Formats: sequence, structure tokens, C-alpha cells
Amino acid sequence: MPRFKLVVEYAGTRYSGWQIQQNARTVAGEIDRAVREVAKRREFELYGAGRTDAGVHAIAQVAHLDLYTDLPPATLHARLNDALPSDIYIREIENVPHRFHARHDAEARAYLYQISRRKTAFFKPFVWWIKEPLDVARMRDASRTLVGMRDFASFTADEPDEKSTRVLVDRLEIAEDGELILIRIIGSHFLWRMVRRIVGVLAAVGCGELSARQVQAFLDGDSDLPAILTAPASGLFLEGVYYRGDVLPGPIRAVTDVRGRR
Amino acid sequence: MPRFKLVVEYAGTRYSGWQIQQNARTVAGEIDRAVREVAKRREFELYGAGRTDAGVHAIAQVAHLDLYTDLPPATLHARLNDALPSDIYIREIENVPHRFHARHDAEARAYLYQISRRKTAFFKPFVWWIKEPLDVARMRDASRTLVGMRDFASFTADEPDEKSTRVLVDRLEIAEDGELILIRIIGSHFLWRMVRRIVGVLAAVGCGELSARQVQAFLDGDSDLPAILTAPASGLFLEGVYYRGDVLPGPIRAVTDVRGRR
Repeated sequence: MPRFKLVVEYAGTRYSGWQIQQNARTVAGEIDRAVREVAKRREFELYGAGRTDAGVHAIAQVAHLDLYTDLPPATLHARLNDALPSDIYIREIENVPHRFHARHDAEARAYLYQISRRKTAFFKPFVWWIKEPLDVARMRDASRTLVGMRDFASFTADEPDEKSTRVLVDRLEIAEDGELILIRIIGSHFLWRMVRRIVGVLAAVGCGELSARQVQAFLDGDSDLPAILTAPASGLFLEGVYYRGDVLPGPIRAVTDVRGRR
Repeated sequence: MPRFKLVVEYAGTRYSGWQIQQNARTVAGEIDRAVREVAKRREFELYGAGRTDAGVHAIAQVAHLDLYTDLPPATLHARLNDALPSDIYIREIENVPHRFHARHDAEARAYLYQISRRKTAFFKPFVWWIKEPLDVARMRDASRTLVGMRDFASFTADEPDEKSTRVLVDRLEIAEDGELILIRIIGSHFLWRMVRRIVGVLAAVGCGELSARQVQAFLDGDSDLPAILTAPASGLFLEGVYYRGDVLPGPIRAVTDVRGRR
């Protein structure tokens, strides 16, 4: 069956995550419905590179779709977007060889997290608003502990022993853009809730509630990471999924602009 | 009574505009409610620099508030923001002399309009999505006709003879930022619907549906401007209100980022 690669942008606010579920509205579920409607077929398969949680957004989720259709890719692209709700947008669609697998071939994933130091009338669904002053230098300092091959067992809500909890974090960047603090994490793969717990821990460091040494103790498994340190889904974006030959993203850029302008 | 100057940001999507109305949710109505709640007073007056229509946003609307309160401005500021819904945010509050009048003293107003060339999953409420290709050079060319002191009678939905329809447009700028086309109009004041009709006309020029000469004919009153050329409220932001000594805004900057990134 012909295989298509899809790059998908979505606002996760209204969805119970990416993965199709019974009795819940999901992003893949909406795409599935749109494909049925547009291609008038029921035999096809949609496979996402990663599952995003309820409320988490994507700038560029990748999926592959196996589908027989007479429609040229450009027509399929336009019709699917017309059939999708306004908060899901297929950015690109292209034919790929059948050996391409959205999930297994992904070599890196990038997540972007937006913290806002102020209330924002426009972008509440896309930030975590933190009222307390944050010391970004302290956050950067503590973040160094989390880069490299580490055991993130205490940073995940996965069941223990299910799979290895050792993960290679390639890059962890923290940037300031006006009233926003942007955190980007790039790695080969991530455990369930891991990115949101890293952000939650770094925010607690920024507020002075945790020290870099305590972050190290979480990593070493010497102390339990309280689940309350999980940052809210609203600020999190799956920024991109990268395959052999793809270029990793350049400087961090905010999705929204909450700079203090007049 | 002490007078405060307020600078207010809001997403207009859920509101029937700025101005207080009976049986309709408005931005000023929400601020009014918040002041009553926080200051525990019913005698106060709130006066906006300009009325924005239903669905129109503001980056920095200005209002003055006459209110007796024991609260220091910083406390009043924080409590009002806590009492306001998430899509209204008071950016600044400061004591001003009683002679300051938010509306009468305003010397210039800037409006920003966001057109998106593509569907955007995140920012539908903040753009006008136009599918047809737009020729920005043609739009810029036609926009020159609209700068200076002109009679905008055919660009307003105001009742005729109510007031002068001659308006001085100081600046009309069109910029491209990735998939966005940004239009900024700065002038002393604007007539009802005037900015949205200017944008609607320029978009029609960009699509090749209108010529610069036809724009001139609208201005000259030689042909009627069809109301359908009114651009939707969603893309429009009151960017700022400027008083004696204020600096007009610098380069145009998008509120949202819909650049074609991966």
C-alpha cells in the first residue's frame, strides 16, 4: 500500500492526546475520521512518531499513513485540511518508501516548553504562567546535570521494569524571550511525563524551592520526585521529530509573543 | 477622585467589544465587575480610549479609572488581574493627574492586522486565513493612496453626516513574516469599521480582484465599497494608544508565530 509521511501541527487543548481512544476525542482520531471522509476508504493505517498526552501541543508531529487513493498528494493534503477541525493542521504530506517508519526510524525528538512570567490574555492555553520570580541562571546551572545518558526512573510515571529508564538527552537549552522562558529538550526518546517533570523540577529550582544537588538526588534515585512537580501540559509542544539526514532545529523561538511591548 | 491610567490587553473573541452593554459580555463590563469586587465600591468611572468591536483584540488599549481606594496601585493591579478572566490582562496601572483623559488626549492610535497565508492550528482566533495567493507588492502599491488626509466616507459604516469622515492616516505599513502578512495603520482616529475595510480592500487588491484605481474610486466616492470587503474581526488588534511624549511603535512584529518551521 502506498505510504505517506504527514507532518502535523495541533493545539492539544481540546484533545485527550494523540493516540486513538474509545469514547475520547483525540488528534489521531480526528485525522482517522478525515481520511475516511476524504478517501472514502476504511482500510488504512495511521502511525504517529510519538504519543502526546492530553493537552500537549505539536508544532510538527510526524505520522505515516498507509492508504490506497487515486488522489494526488496535493489534493489529498488540501482536502484533509478542509475536513479537519481548525486546531489540527497537516503541514506537509509526501509519498515515502514503504520502509520509512514514523516511529522506529525517528532518531531524535525535540520538545519546547513555554513558561510565561506574566498572565497573557492571548496565550493561556500555550504557556505555564508562573507568578514567582524565576532565577534563570540557577535553572541553567541545574539543567546541566540532566544532559547526557542518565537514568530518568524518578522522572517518569511509567510502570517500573517495563523498559529501560536510561535516556540520552542530547541538548537542554533555556532561553529568555521577553516575558517568556523557553526550555527545549532534544533526545532520542523520552519516558512518559519525563519532559514535564524535568520542566517542573527546573521551575522549582528557579523559584529557589530546590537545589541543583536535590536534582542530582532525584537522578540518583536517592529521593523521590513528587508528582506535583509535573509541569502542566499547556506549555508543552512536540517541536519536531528528526530522521536520518534531517537537520536539528536552530535557535529556540517562541510560538507566541508575550513580550512587554506597547 | 484619584485617576488611574490602565493599559489593557485582551482577546476579543468571547466579547461583544469593549463598551459596556446591557445583556452582553464586554471587556469594560468585566473590568467594571472586577473593580467593584476588588475595591468594594460602586462609585467609580471607567473610560476607554477607543471602542473596539466584537471579536477585536487589544495589545494595549488605554483607559482611565476614577476611583477612591485605599489600595496601593501595585496591590490594586495584582488583585484586579486575579479577579479578571484569563483573556483580559491589565498590563499597567499608574496614578495620573486628573487632567489626563484616555480618549480626548490620545494623539494617535495604532492597529495591527494579521493575515495568515495558511491554516494555523494554534492561532485561528488571531488571524484572517486567506487561501488565495496574495501579491504583497500590489497591496503596498495600492496602500499609498490611503495615506495622508483623506475622506474615508465609503470606508465606514457610520451614519452619514454624523461627523466628519476626513481622517489623517499617518502610516500604513505592510510586512511579511513567514506565512503572515502584517498590516499596521497609524492615525489620529478611525471611523467605525474603517480599519477592517481598508484591510479588506487591500486583500482584494492582493488577490487581483481590485485595482489601485478602484481603491482611488472608493476614496473619491465614485463607486460604493461593498460591505463584504470588511475584513473579519479576528485578525485585528488595537496595538497602542499614544499620548503627548509617547514614542510611536517601531518595526511591525507579529503577535503569533506561524512561520513555516520544523
